[in-house]
Amino acid sequence: MFENKERTEISQLGEFGLINHLAGFFENKQPSTIMGIGDDAAVIDNGGNEYGLLTVDAMFEGVHFDLTFHPLKHLGFKAVATAVSDVCAMNGTPTQILISLGLSNRFSLEAVEELYDGIRVACDKYQVDLVGGDTTSSPRGLSLTVTVYGTVAKEKLSKRSGAKEHDLLVVTGDLGAAYMGLQMLEREKKVFMDHPNVQPDLEGHEYILGRQLRPDARLDIVQTLASLNIVPTSMIDISDGLASEIHHLGMHSACGFDVYDEKLPIDTQVMDRAMQFDLNPSVVALNGGEDYELLFTVGQEHYETLKSHPDFTIIGHTTANKGAYRLIGKSGAAFEMKAQGWQHFKG
Amino acid sequence: MFENKERTEISQLGEFGLINHLAGFFENKQPSTIMGIGDDAAVIDNGGNEYGLLTVDAMFEGVHFDLTFHPLKHLGFKAVATAVSDVCAMNGTPTQILISLGLSNRFSLEAVEELYDGIRVACDKYQVDLVGGDTTSSPRGLSLTVTVYGTVAKEKLSKRSGAKEHDLLVVTGDLGAAYMGLQMLEREKKVFMDHPNVQPDLEGHEYILGRQLRPDARLDIVQTLASLNIVPTSMIDISDGLASEIHHLGMHSACGFDVYDEKLPIDTQVMDRAMQFDLNPSVVALNGGEDYELLFTVGQEHYETLKSHPDFTIIGHTTANKGAYRLIGKSGAAFEMKAQGWQHFKG
Repeated sequence: MFENKERTEISQLGEFGLINHLAGFFENKQPSTIMGIGDDAAVIDNGGNEYGLLTVDAMFEGVHFDLTFHPLKHLGFKAVATAVSDVCAMNGTPTQILISLGLSNRFSLEAVEELYDGIRVACDKYQVDLVGGDTTSSPRGLSLTVTVYGTVAKEKLSKRSGAKEHDLLVVTGDLGAAYMGLQMLEREKKVFMDHPNVQPDLEGHEYILGRQLRPDARLDIVQTLASLNIVPTSMIDISDGLASEIHHLGMHSACGFDVYDEKLPIDTQVMDRAMQFDLNPSVVALNGGEDYELLFTVGQEHYETLKSHPDFTIIGHTTANKGAYRLIGKSGAAFEMKAQGWQHFKG
Repeated sequence: MFENKERTEISQLGEFGLINHLAGFFENKQPSTIMGIGDDAAVIDNGGNEYGLLTVDAMFEGVHFDLTFHPLKHLGFKAVATAVSDVCAMNGTPTQILISLGLSNRFSLEAVEELYDGIRVACDKYQVDLVGGDTTSSPRGLSLTVTVYGTVAKEKLSKRSGAKEHDLLVVTGDLGAAYMGLQMLEREKKVFMDHPNVQPDLEGHEYILGRQLRPDARLDIVQTLASLNIVPTSMIDISDGLASEIHHLGMHSACGFDVYDEKLPIDTQVMDRAMQFDLNPSVVALNGGEDYELLFTVGQEHYETLKSHPDFTIIGHTTANKGAYRLIGKSGAAFEMKAQGWQHFKG
């Protein structure tokens, strides 16, 4: 089974390449497994009216977060929110979570309490129960693994596959703020390291900093879609960046996408900061990542409803041109939309 | 809520103290949460005929395993088996797992393939589907977090609570072998570090080494109990050591236990090794940990069935003396059975 005995670096495959490679060695045997590896959450048939949804998300200090500028309370909230987001991406409602914590001896009880205070706030906000976990020593730093269980009515399940030709491509909220928040925090950290007496200059940037440090899962959107009687034909959450997620939808749904540059929802704070950092705001919106907004496709019959709704922006549509992901500029010129992403904070 | 701003070391509370302390800040809100923190797995009502069971287990290199003597394939198997064991401890059947992997750049694709080969063997053995996970960079070493989902018929759920007065205390398999295996591996590692030319002397000790490196979950016992029409009044798996688990059952069931020293099931390899290491075999059996056998209580009506069955040993019984855990020696003298455990490899 594993004949290649040379040393191959994991980085040659990347995260998705590695997962696809390893998934090939496994076969599902349980009739209750409706969907396994390859979407935002696994789908399980429990014999009830709803499907069960199951997902896990890990965060390591020094890889996914930096405690020099990430308050522990916000980090606890973020760990839950980003995992809950995966259940929302299936059009589901989270109900229970488990927390597995790795702690080096650097952390005191008071630090762990701060972290759990944020976890508790998130549990209240998303109405999920913390039902278990595991707390253990780690050889270095802090790590947090959050398992989320949730449910979805069978007829409302939204997978990455299912987008049809001429479907609208819709995104919630705005894009790129979490990435710009991270750029600001890293710049101020560097200034502080070089000049410890200089106070960090973060005032007036609360929105983009909050988007990085304490992002929200769009559970409200799952509820809004239900109240509008809209079931997406496909859906995903934006963790790695819009372009990367569009590639996922296209790959799973076997379609292409045309996206209109001028339609990308970008906050003015992101516009300002991007220009100050000499970055193209559209590139930030496409590749920034960590927005945790929802990206979905729906039939054209929902155009009027979505067009006038403040939570949604129609940014493009599917095409029959499988594997073609095009960004259309104001002039009408089309560019290939690569899924490179910065992926700084997603392993 | 968190008024104490001094620095308190986590070690002052211990793992269970920390979990209990933090659990106090959370309240369950979901009607589907039948049982949350405090047992081997959480219990969820999905609206079907069976309950869902959910548990997570984390292992860190340098804390829970040592790759100088732990083959990656065995480690992959062990990670799944030890997590599956928690579902067995609820009298449940595991059906799906998720793996969250943290990898430093020391690990090649070939190493990860070895690990997943062991995971695959365990998935086949326990008939569970690998339905998702997360693979990410870690700042140091290897970490594995396994989430297990399973089911149990509502009337067969076995919790830590529920033991009644005069119930029999029963254990599966034998005890102490995993701990003695670890002692041998650590001794041979030390010899090898001091004298790299000396070959490790591990022949003839395959049983105890296997119990440490590649332990099994007792899913077969869940099936045997079903075929014998026996539902334990309480149950737990032995991860931290028999004495520690007896304390858990007693605390949750509000009872005491009398355990008979001469009844403790100990393999002859464990007897021999314990004496060579100048250890009392009973102490090894009581506190060694990592046996992953099942420990349960049942009504006395099952005495004849269990007494003659090769998988089970009746080692004692419950008492009304809440909080009293006594080890009765051959002479009839009773000793207090403390739950100190070595707990080397369980955070």
